[in-house]
Amino acid sequence: MANIIDLKTFTDSRGNLTVVEKVIPFDIKRVFYIYGVDDSVRGKHRHKKTLQAAISIQGSCRIMNQSGTGQPYQEFTLDSPSKCLIINPEDYHWMDRFSKDCILMVFASEFYDAGDYIFEPYEQ
Amino acid sequence: MANIIDLKTFTDSRGNLTVVEKVIPFDIKRVFYIYGVDDSVRGKHRHKKTLQAAISIQGSCRIMNQSGTGQPYQEFTLDSPSKCLIINPEDYHWMDRFSKDCILMVFASEFYDAGDYIFEPYEQ
Repeated sequence: MANIIDLKTFTDSRGNLTVVEKVIPFDIKRVFYIYGVDDSVRGKHRHKKTLQAAISIQGSCRIMNQSGTGQPYQEFTLDSPSKCLIINPEDYHWMDRFSKDCILMVFASEFYDAGDYIFEPYEQ
Repeated sequence: MANIIDLKTFTDSRGNLTVVEKVIPFDIKRVFYIYGVDDSVRGKHRHKKTLQAAISIQGSCRIMNQSGTGQPYQEFTLDSPSKCLIINPEDYHWMDRFSKDCILMVFASEFYDAGDYIFEPYEQ
């Protein structure tokens, strides 16, 4: 199951500062960010080991998620720089409905390993 | 001394993906991002222990840096999501000239600790 956590944002006359510290359930080994996305669907996989934390730093996108055979789909709209989605290894997920200005930041618990990806969806 | 490293960006018809993996010289314990900044100057400190990596994910800003008494100022313009500035503990730095759309992402090697900040500039 994926779940949303709220990040602390400090706002004053100078602007906003959002912090990710001691709130995600793993050590960050890899970061990537996706931007300038068209109407593509991205993701469509789950992992053997990797946990991820996803934040739409700007704009919005949708993440659909299924955590096992017969499990209901979870639908998340990431539309705030303070909203962080924790995606567990068993969570088969895809991202779509990217706004033109969307910047999707992802933290991962493992280094990239092609062998860690499972592309086959769960049976319904 | 601060120094720039180049991040790998993968671009295809679906958009861009920039990766931060095995290129910054510390483990990430804390992340923060600054956005909606006015014409403020931010920073104006160095650290006892903390290393940082700063990326302007969108827009641009300037980072000025001095690594010790009598050392020349270093001036960096962060204006690309693939450009990452490594700031060492001894680097007294400040950030200004934020574009309106700037999103400045910072990775830090330590958890927040008020006692780790040194606000006094180096003597010239």
